[in-house]
Order: sequence, then structure tokens, then C-alpha cells
Amino acid sequence: MIAEGEKLGREKGLKVDWAAFADAWRGGYGPAMNRVRTGQLPWTKLDVLHRTTLDGLLEKFKIEGLTEAEKAHFNKAWHRLHPWPDSVAGLTRLRKRFVIAPLSNGNVSLLTNMAKFAGLPWDAILSTELVRHYKPDKETYLMAVDFWDLEPAHVMMVAAHAGDLNAAKALGLRTAYVHRPLEYGPARKPEPPAAGTFDFIVKDFGELATQVGV
Amino acid sequence: MIAEGEKLGREKGLKVDWAAFADAWRGGYGPAMNRVRTGQLPWTKLDVLHRTTLDGLLEKFKIEGLTEAEKAHFNKAWHRLHPWPDSVAGLTRLRKRFVIAPLSNGNVSLLTNMAKFAGLPWDAILSTELVRHYKPDKETYLMAVDFWDLEPAHVMMVAAHAGDLNAAKALGLRTAYVHRPLEYGPARKPEPPAAGTFDFIVKDFGELATQVGV
Repeated sequence: MIAEGEKLGREKGLKVDWAAFADAWRGGYGPAMNRVRTGQLPWTKLDVLHRTTLDGLLEKFKIEGLTEAEKAHFNKAWHRLHPWPDSVAGLTRLRKRFVIAPLSNGNVSLLTNMAKFAGLPWDAILSTELVRHYKPDKETYLMAVDFWDLEPAHVMMVAAHAGDLNAAKALGLRTAYVHRPLEYGPARKPEPPAAGTFDFIVKDFGELATQVGV
Repeated sequence: MIAEGEKLGREKGLKVDWAAFADAWRGGYGPAMNRVRTGQLPWTKLDVLHRTTLDGLLEKFKIEGLTEAEKAHFNKAWHRLHPWPDSVAGLTRLRKRFVIAPLSNGNVSLLTNMAKFAGLPWDAILSTELVRHYKPDKETYLMAVDFWDLEPAHVMMVAAHAGDLNAAKALGLRTAYVHRPLEYGPARKPEPPAAGTFDFIVKDFGELATQVGV
């Protein structure tokens, strides 16, 4: 995200603190989703929420002179995120035995484009857009259960955020926590959860694959 | 499908005309979907419609002695269909430039399992289950348009069935007809449509890839 901002800045001759800009953009995500979750806004896909946040930030950071096409392209920086270095290899292993899919607040096109950009070998795309509810609404975690006619205990939620896993666990899903020390940048390191909080606590997808025996 | 029936027949010592059985099973698909489309039935996923048809056919063909697990496994023969021989290579070429996805009445798990079984390199799964409408309801063809925020003319429906393409064309989508002489078995060969009926008329996915320049 920061790299995309810097590239745009060079092209347009902008002087912007892109790390602060990226933090602010990401910071707008939770509140925007909550406006949908609480009924203040009708269902709105994440691309549109991101764009609303972006338009506010362009004003706040006094970024001027972008064409509509440039804004639309920059908004889709979320479709072009780079994966953690272990992701492609780890998912490729897990996929041999399991059906793997993201369960994400990103809309269907965002996740599909991300997979294509990053080479992520997902078997299906479980976007919260499919049920028109954002996490942690229960409809989102129950998607795989419903689509595959499974018991919740036969589905595992894998995430780097304890809140996400707690919501899944409360519905009876199994859980795996992947510790990503750099998830919030180098300055704000997350604490790993206490042993036993989740079914698995691992450092990356490779370790998860080893622990489940694939 | 016939091979799956023959395998089951050998295991269980059954004497059944599996070609006739497969035809009858497939024949039950349209009427069952129409019961959903006309509101006689609430939304029901294809796996469940297939199972209802299967239970009727087991009675009609006097097939007895199957356990529930055997019936459930046989019902999922639709998850284990073999692709046309050109499909994987042709789709792999098309996928380099385009986002490719099935637009199918098969439910999400059916299509995901089919892709995994057959190695089909789809970028996303567009099942009619996602909009709870069966084809040719317009909601199904407009799925890609809505998910990707595209004009209909920027989406192409590719199918071996003219009726499917006509429904897509009426909504402004582009269309490609793939001629599959064996689609209904060797005895009942479909006529190819007249030149100009669709944007492309090709013999397989390889020819389609060549015609669109990938």
C-alpha cells in the first residue's frame, strides 16, 4: 500500500507521508463496516467503502490533481496486496487435503483479483459479500458450514486476528491462529495468544500444514 | 456418470442399464429447477434436487440395498465429472488475460469439488446458489456484471447450449458457443447454430483462446 502511494506520489509530484496515509486508510475500514453492520448504511461492498474513505483522505492530506481513473486505480491497490512469503507454499500444501478459501470482508472481485495477482491457490472465494454481512456477524462464519453441509467442527477458521477467531470459535468452528509480528508494521507488535486459546497457534502456513500432517 | 453407476453396480451386484439411468437422472434436472424457479419450492441447492431425483430413480429402477452413505456418495457423482479433454489447457490460456469462472446451476461445493477433482483453473466460482436463482433467471447472468462492476458487454458467457447463450445475449452480455457434438451422447448430436448467432462459435476452448488472441 505504501509502495503504491509512493509510486503515485512520484508520478504526480506529491509530497505525502504514505505510511501515515496507509494507516489512516486502513483505520477507516472498521468504522465504515460498522456503519453497514448497524444498519446506518445498506449493504455496501468493500471497494465502495474504501473509495469513500479514500476521498476523505485525499482531502485531509491535501492531495489534488488526481483524475478519476487515477483515483479508481489507487482504490484498487487493495486488490494488489502482496502475500506473506510463506502463503503460496503453505496453502499449496494444505490444499492437497483440504478445501481452502479466504473468509474475508473483501468483495468477490477484490479477492479474486488478489488471488490472481499473488498466485494464491484458493479453491473458492468466500467473500462476506455473498451473504451481505460483514464480520463478525455470524452469517459470515457459517458460510462454509452452509455451502458444504458440514458440522461447524469440521470447518477451521485460520486468521492472524484473535477477535476473528473468537467469533468463529463461539459458533463451534475450529480455529488456528497464525502469528504475524509485522501485521501492524514494525512499531506495534501484536502479542501472541496464550497456549490453548485456539486449536492451533503457529508462526506461518507451513507450520500449520506440518501440524495437520500434510 | 455411467462409469460411476457401473462401479456401484459391480460392488453391489446390481443389474441396471446405467446409460438409461444417467439419462433419466439428468432429465430430472430441468423440471426440478423449474419447480424452484416458479416458486413451487423454496430455494433448494442442486445437490438436494439431485438427491430427490435419485431417490425416485432408485425406486423406479428397483435398486435396493444401498446404505445412506452409498446413496450420498453416488449423489455426489456430479462433483466428480470429467472435463472435456481441451478444457484444462484452453482455460489455462484464457485465464492469462481474463478472469474465468463457471456460471453454473451446480451449487458452490459441487463446483468447487469439481474444479479440484478435474484440475480446472477457475479464478472464482459463480454458482447460481449465490443469488438463489436458477438459470435462465436474469440474476444469474448479471452476477459477474454486479460483482465486477462491469458493463454487460464486457462480460462473455461461454456455453455449449444455445438457450443459455440466448438468455445472456438478451441481457447484453457477449457470447461464445462451444460446439460439443457428444454433449448428449453419440445418438443425439446437437446442430451447431447459424454463423453470426453468437460473437464466437468454436469447437473447443483452445480455438476460443486463439480467436481472442491468447
